Amino acid sequence: MATKLDQLKKRLRTVYCLREASALLSWDQETGMPPGAAGARAEQLSALSEAAHDLFVADETGELLEAAGQEVQDAESEDAHLVRRCRREYRRETRLPRELVAELAEATSRAQGVWARAKAQQDFSVFAPELTRVLDLTRQVAGCQGYDEHPYDALLEGYEPGMRTSRLRPLFEGLRGRLVDLVRRVGRGPQLDDAPLRQVFEVSRQREYVQRLAGTLGYDFDRGRIDQSEHPFCISMSTRDVRITNAFDEDFLGRSVFGTLHETGHALYEQGSPERFLHGPLEGGCSMGVHESQSRLWENLVGRGRPFWVHHYPGLVATFPQQLSRFSLDDFHRAINRVQPSLVRVEADEVTYNLHIMLRFELELALLEGSLQVREIPEAWNAAMQDYLGLVPPHDGLGCLQDVHWSLGLFGYFPTYTLGNLLAAQLWEKIQSDLPSLEEDLESGNLEGLRGWLGEKVHVWGARLTPEELTRQATGRDLEPEPFLAYLEKKFGALYPA
Amino acid sequence: MATKLDQLKKRLRTVYCLREASALLSWDQETGMPPGAAGARAEQLSALSEAAHDLFVADETGELLEAAGQEVQDAESEDAHLVRRCRREYRRETRLPRELVAELAEATSRAQGVWARAKAQQDFSVFAPELTRVLDLTRQVAGCQGYDEHPYDALLEGYEPGMRTSRLRPLFEGLRGRLVDLVRRVGRGPQLDDAPLRQVFEVSRQREYVQRLAGTLGYDFDRGRIDQSEHPFCISMSTRDVRITNAFDEDFLGRSVFGTLHETGHALYEQGSPERFLHGPLEGGCSMGVHESQSRLWENLVGRGRPFWVHHYPGLVATFPQQLSRFSLDDFHRAINRVQPSLVRVEADEVTYNLHIMLRFELELALLEGSLQVREIPEAWNAAMQDYLGLVPPHDGLGCLQDVHWSLGLFGYFPTYTLGNLLAAQLWEKIQSDLPSLEEDLESGNLEGLRGWLGEKVHVWGARLTPEELTRQATGRDLEPEPFLAYLEKKFGALYPA
Repeated sequence: MATKLDQLKKRLRTVYCLREASALLSWDQETGMPPGAAGARAEQLSALSEAAHDLFVADETGELLEAAGQEVQDAESEDAHLVRRCRREYRRETRLPRELVAELAEATSRAQGVWARAKAQQDFSVFAPELTRVLDLTRQVAGCQGYDEHPYDALLEGYEPGMRTSRLRPLFEGLRGRLVDLVRRVGRGPQLDDAPLRQVFEVSRQREYVQRLAGTLGYDFDRGRIDQSEHPFCISMSTRDVRITNAFDEDFLGRSVFGTLHETGHALYEQGSPERFLHGPLEGGCSMGVHESQSRLWENLVGRGRPFWVHHYPGLVATFPQQLSRFSLDDFHRAINRVQPSLVRVEADEVTYNLHIMLRFELELALLEGSLQVREIPEAWNAAMQDYLGLVPPHDGLGCLQDVHWSLGLFGYFPTYTLGNLLAAQLWEKIQSDLPSLEEDLESGNLEGLRGWLGEKVHVWGARLTPEELTRQATGRDLEPEPFLAYLEKKFGALYPA
Repeated sequence: MATKLDQLKKRLRTVYCLREASALLSWDQETGMPPGAAGARAEQLSALSEAAHDLFVADETGELLEAAGQEVQDAESEDAHLVRRCRREYRRETRLPRELVAELAEATSRAQGVWARAKAQQDFSVFAPELTRVLDLTRQVAGCQGYDEHPYDALLEGYEPGMRTSRLRPLFEGLRGRLVDLVRRVGRGPQLDDAPLRQVFEVSRQREYVQRLAGTLGYDFDRGRIDQSEHPFCISMSTRDVRITNAFDEDFLGRSVFGTLHETGHALYEQGSPERFLHGPLEGGCSMGVHESQSRLWENLVGRGRPFWVHHYPGLVATFPQQLSRFSLDDFHRAINRVQPSLVRVEADEVTYNLHIMLRFELELALLEGSLQVREIPEAWNAAMQDYLGLVPPHDGLGCLQDVHWSLGLFGYFPTYTLGNLLAAQLWEKIQSDLPSLEEDLESGNLEGLRGWLGEKVHVWGARLTPEELTRQATGRDLEPEPFLAYLEKKFGALYPA
């Protein structure tokens, strides 16, 4: 006789397999789907998501969850963590009326198209009515899911379990002043030259290089593959099949190299999930923020550090001798760390990036609270850009229309990028103290120690812990802005001497 | 208020979208899935198929079918055809107990592995116990689904709706004697030389050539893509996304060229399904046999005919001047029509191919009737090979273990290959009479008339008609062996003069 827990796992297995199938359909859509299939694909994705949803929110799941919870004795066991995580999701999904989910799907599908048009026309007013509708439905979603303090908490919970607005505010408050100061200080000195990266780099050679690079980091090609897409991403069809994509710019080497380091960071997390979590709620990462900590750690803490390139730069020069042999390691290190306030978030450097996020966080809060109206967004956006980065977008396309997120109803998502940056630095601080030879290891191309640490402290836990538990367990304390600020101030203090 | 028919269509839409997702997972499995994902993928496919099955066989589907059937007035309307086809499938699927489906899935999954091992070891006795089990379960399936005359009918019905053993027997009877005679006659004259095809042909150039060739036939790349796989196939994720694959042999040009013509024939049928059949039971082909008629028509009736190459051979020579410029069109035409009795079905020519099928059909019948025991298969196989083709396999790997079909429980499938060959010739005869300029059109590379005829008489009907209805409507009579035999005897009489 199967236990209730076994029955629950069996049921979840089907739900997760359906979600994994959706992931493959999405991967295909971005990498090679024939253009004429777009409409049919959207219908297939919606059918899959509906089928998985219906199976998951059925009363039977709730009853099994209840009974399984009583079977599990040890509250710290894997099974207890599974039940806890699943219960949380069950509560969230069952609280949403089917009609609201359908209305939101329909509204965001339309809004996405209008957003693309508005962006091309550089005119926010085209998008405003759609955004108003999406925002209204998002407020209803928050209301259905419930919250103790702030409606934004209900949205945050979808991406960063346990995170609260009241916790984010002081975290961000602690960053703002020192980041703005650092940006200004950097702006006063002589600028770093990124000429080494801005030459013509044959795409096929870039492709070969970054594929090798991903392998060097530990990406397992037996359980993954690398393709090309318009924007790079990582997607998991289970820990047995974690794919990444590259995007190339013939005139800028940074795009493929740092994109690959970033996506490989995500992929190592997914590939590091224990086999026994396959097709279940504990597989994969524990939150968007923790996931971003893994990509950012490899992209920035490792990949924009000098030690890593002590080992790797000669190979890069050998791949592009014509372009790079006249530049020293230090030239290259400076080039990849140029700080330059810019209008577009996805192109931002380590110092300015989080100011883009804060701006969005503040606008989202104000919109949700009703203190900001949709039509007022462009003005508020431009004022904040002037405040933080000293720049004003020439038009909305490079301003408040730059991101797709709001059209998709992804309010509450942006802060996880900054949480990832903070956690990456806090993990890095701990890794440096746990692995005294880290710097020499990186300089000699030995990544074993670093991979082992991340595997043991982060990857192997899958989605068992909350982000807060994982942070405490891995670093010994709660998430703080200080490690990140100290890292930036030290690194860029040296790169941009006063 | 939605009609019952609308509700039925909505429900079927989800079922078909799930099946289409399965198709994409299968496509990916054969074209680019990381090897380590195999086990997880099998589980995903099984979850998808279970979810689609559960949704389809639910009582609600039956009730909607019943009510929708009463709403539809005109028995010849599209909606009536939809209800008819769906009812038939509903009856078949609901008659199978869930446990039997699971047992068969498990048995065939195991049998497939054992079959591959037995084939490698060239030893049928390794496979016999597994085949016995699969056959036993297949008999149970036939019993559950029911039949009037012969248990084989219940299996046939799954691939060729309406086909009966009592109809197949005389069809095949009519073929056997004249085919064996033709094989013997051909064997007496001087052999044709296929040297033109057996040279080194650079694979990348083959790839470019056959992709262009598919486009020339009318394959729509906006709703499809061509990849490489071990064995070529065509798979449809809806009429908006019909993909084919190629396989290449550097030492044999015939493999990629005729593989492409074959799969493109399948693809044109799928791409020709009307848009309004999307995600429903009327989309795609009406049976395996009719599907095979489309692939064979392009591969053989068109693609091994002289007129087609009058137009295309110069382009092929231009692609491979070093290999082909010393061979004339007639040399090439003879090379692609060499008849040679061989042990392996998939390599067989137009004349011998159907003898391979008849052999399998007769063994399947005898197995199902109990007049042949599994352990007696090798002896029966070898005796029939001697009878039909004058050859005896040196071992079971090249004999009764050559096909994967039985390990998968696909009894009743083989005859559809021959039905396709017969129908292709019968359609061709009608096309020739309806399009007097066909030969000149082919010689000048004008495929409009042919494509138009097939579109109107076959493709646009999707799965509305039974194979029998379609055959009658398109050719004015029931399926007969005569057009096929006349075509072969005329063509190979000329190629192999007595």
